[in-house]
Parts: sequence; structure tokens; C-alpha cells
Amino acid sequence: MQKVEHIGIAVKELSASIPLFEILLNTNCYKTEIVESENVKTAFFKKGETKIELLESLSNKGVIAKYLEKHGEGMHHIAFEVSDIEAEMKRLMQAGFQLMGTIPKVGADNKLVCFIHPKNTNGVLIELCQSISGK
Amino acid sequence: MQKVEHIGIAVKELSASIPLFEILLNTNCYKTEIVESENVKTAFFKKGETKIELLESLSNKGVIAKYLEKHGEGMHHIAFEVSDIEAEMKRLMQAGFQLMGTIPKVGADNKLVCFIHPKNTNGVLIELCQSISGK
Repeated sequence: MQKVEHIGIAVKELSASIPLFEILLNTNCYKTEIVESENVKTAFFKKGETKIELLESLSNKGVIAKYLEKHGEGMHHIAFEVSDIEAEMKRLMQAGFQLMGTIPKVGADNKLVCFIHPKNTNGVLIELCQSISGK
Repeated sequence: MQKVEHIGIAVKELSASIPLFEILLNTNCYKTEIVESENVKTAFFKKGETKIELLESLSNKGVIAKYLEKHGEGMHHIAFEVSDIEAEMKRLMQAGFQLMGTIPKVGADNKLVCFIHPKNTNGVLIELCQSISGK
């Protein structure tokens, strides 16, 4: 794991949260993106080497919709950049962490991603991500 | 706001969570510190320009104890580094954000800190921090 690539924040409505975070972070949202596989629309901000990724659910059945129902708005996950996601998945699996999926899948922002189940990480949902172009 | 200085994670017991995060992050905890004013013991890890700060409560009355009781273990706050905390507090207050305190206080890791109330930030507890030595 090389750095905190982004922090994911679950919100109800990007239309309200994008201008709020633009003022809060004092920087413009530079990209929005729909991730069909996850049923989410995302909005990105940059601070130093880390992105802040707001996540709005596109349906009432996706993971973000379920999160909002259970927890309300707030921090959803921390994503760490890795150079070789398959090697990192293997390392963590062998150390006893429970991965959500056995192979990486394509996530937002042109990344291969894999999540680690929060029950083994003190309640923190961790994402591993690797730039597809950077492999 | 310049970068994500650290991400705070509330845990029940550092004695269990430090070795867990050392394996997870593949790096050693490089410092622990007691912050008397907050009734917490902290443990720090570094990934890129960002720290991961684990927080254990030293009493059953502190903010972390209350957080654990309500939410369980998990992500507690995001701290952004600022170069002039008083100017940033003024900017955010004028923009309508509610600050927790009108003057910065001394937090962990030799920093002046101020928190922004999560009710105005989509449920995310935001910390502003400025290195005391860097002022």
C-alpha cells in the first residue's frame, strides 16, 4: 500500500453536496462519473495526493443506498493505492483478512479495485485500488 | 486546506488494533501518544503524505468512548492540514459551517486543531490542523 488514494463519503444528493464540499475544501469538483456496476454516481475533489470521492446511490438497492439507510451520510471507505493488486490481495488473504471477491473488479476512476470486509478491520471498509493504465 | 494530514479511526483497544493495522497497512506503528485533554491514546502509521491515527479512549466519558458506544469501531474523522488555522476557521465560519470552539486547541502530534460540526458536512467530522512548529 503506497498512499491514501481517496476517501469515499456516502451522501444523499450530489447536487447539494458538491457545492458544499467545494466551499468546505476550497477547491472545485473536477469530475463526476457514473459507475454502473455499483449503482453509484461519484464526484471527485483533490487535496494533495488524495482524492475525496462523494458517492450518491442511483437506486434504492445499491451498497450506498443500504449504507445510508443504516448509518446515514458520512465516511464510507478508505482506498489505498497499490502497485500490484493481486499480490496485495494474496498477502492480505494469507494474513487472515476477508476480501469481498476473489478477483479485482473495475471501479470508478479507471481503477481495478477490491474491498476488505470491515469486520476484520475495526469497522473500517478498506479498498485496494490500482490504476489500470499504470499496470 | 493543503492535504489529508490524517484519518482518525476509533478502536476499542490499541493493543489489538496496532498489530492488526501493522499487518493491514504493511508498515510499523511509529508513535503512540496520550492526549490528556481528549482522554485518548493514539497510535500513528504513515502511508504516503497521510497518517492513519488509531484512537482509544482512556475513560468511559471521552468523545471516543461516546463514539464507540453509539457507532462502534470505525472511521471517526478526516484531518486536513492548513497553513493558517485561524484564517481557515474564519473562512469556514463565514461560509456557515459550525466550528466546535472559537479558538484552536492543542491536539495530538504537536498540532493546533479545530473540529467542524458534522451536521453541516454530510455527517463527516472534519478536523483542521496546523503544525505548531510550522507556524
